[in-house]
Amino acid sequence: MHKNIVAEAGLIAHGRGEAFDYLLGERTPNFAIRQETLAVILLLEAKKPVISVNGNVAVLCPKELVALSKELGAPLEINLFYRTKERELAIKKVLDDAGADQVLGIDPDMQETIPELSHLRRIVDSRGIAQSDCVFVPLEDGDRSMALRNLGKNIVTVDLNPLSRTSLTATVSITNNITRSITEMIEIAKELKNSSPDQIKMLRGTLENKKLLREALEFIVFRLKKLASEESALEI
Amino acid sequence: MHKNIVAEAGLIAHGRGEAFDYLLGERTPNFAIRQETLAVILLLEAKKPVISVNGNVAVLCPKELVALSKELGAPLEINLFYRTKERELAIKKVLDDAGADQVLGIDPDMQETIPELSHLRRIVDSRGIAQSDCVFVPLEDGDRSMALRNLGKNIVTVDLNPLSRTSLTATVSITNNITRSITEMIEIAKELKNSSPDQIKMLRGTLENKKLLREALEFIVFRLKKLASEESALEI
Repeated sequence: MHKNIVAEAGLIAHGRGEAFDYLLGERTPNFAIRQETLAVILLLEAKKPVISVNGNVAVLCPKELVALSKELGAPLEINLFYRTKERELAIKKVLDDAGADQVLGIDPDMQETIPELSHLRRIVDSRGIAQSDCVFVPLEDGDRSMALRNLGKNIVTVDLNPLSRTSLTATVSITNNITRSITEMIEIAKELKNSSPDQIKMLRGTLENKKLLREALEFIVFRLKKLASEESALEI
Repeated sequence: MHKNIVAEAGLIAHGRGEAFDYLLGERTPNFAIRQETLAVILLLEAKKPVISVNGNVAVLCPKELVALSKELGAPLEINLFYRTKERELAIKKVLDDAGADQVLGIDPDMQETIPELSHLRRIVDSRGIAQSDCVFVPLEDGDRSMALRNLGKNIVTVDLNPLSRTSLTATVSITNNITRSITEMIEIAKELKNSSPDQIKMLRGTLENKKLLREALEFIVFRLKKLASEESALEI
């Protein structure tokens, strides 16, 4: 926040995420690996995958973002809810320092808008999200992810609340901590590149967003009961 | 935060609370009314009740704090995890503007320390928490509430996580949004003042912290299942 990368409201959003990660046990559950696998399949299959980056994501895992971008051949595009020139440049610097090849989203000559959205979060890059068929928008607000979905794009997201509008409307939502997710997605991408098209097709047939979100919810309920019995003799 | 009342870390803590309040449905459940009732009984029975105030609490419900303070005859005492002179004065101003009669905790001549604690959060007022037999410490960190409990004081808290150390070690923890809680506690105090000692004794016998926290957990599990079935057809 002091470096003008994260917005003030981003701190509150981060706290909401911390609470849900606490419910997960601050570890990646099995269902999340399956969500990440479906996410990577969609991104690898896409003609023009793009990774959308906001302030929170840039602060939490810049190196992982750059590595995933290279692994998927998907450019990074800065997209901000609270967009200022200063924040754009601060985030670009974080990504450049982490080794990014190309950072889209901040060249005024290349900006288009999504008509459905208000405010500056409607801006997209004509070389990036505007023409992308599959956008990875981690930690995204519901309106924006829905607007992108309504444009017919596949939407991949990371959102620790499995019942958020973003989670429910995405093509696939990953219910996990962003830093763990992206690290795991890089490994999954490497593995999938060594799999046959038939193997990937079969795997994909077993994975579906709502079903995986239901598993996430079941896991949170299980964890609450476990915490209740283990840590405090509050068995329920 | 801009007025120097809330610390930066307070924004993240607020976000964690928002996530748990979402799980409650942003309304006061029945068990919380019972927690608040036990809390008010303990504070009314105390010889020297004190209400501890930090930055988040001061920003969220200053008028309610002052009204509860008057209803219970319990002075307000400023207690900060990140204590600076500037923040002390900013919070005192908020409480004064809300009509507080007396604000303890910031007169250097009246400060004592709790040996068990490190940092400036160890400071207590010799006229207030130091000699209090029942301290209301809403939104408190686990170390501090445990240290006060270890001094033999009754501890009443508000904490939206029913499994936090604060919740589990308090004499009674209220699993509810602070603003709703304090508003309701003022009404409960008025009602209890019109009840007979026998009525209060009987009521108190039915109320116990761990039992009430177990109800809170059961309610959160119920809510997750309800959200899953109603809002998204993710029935679990």
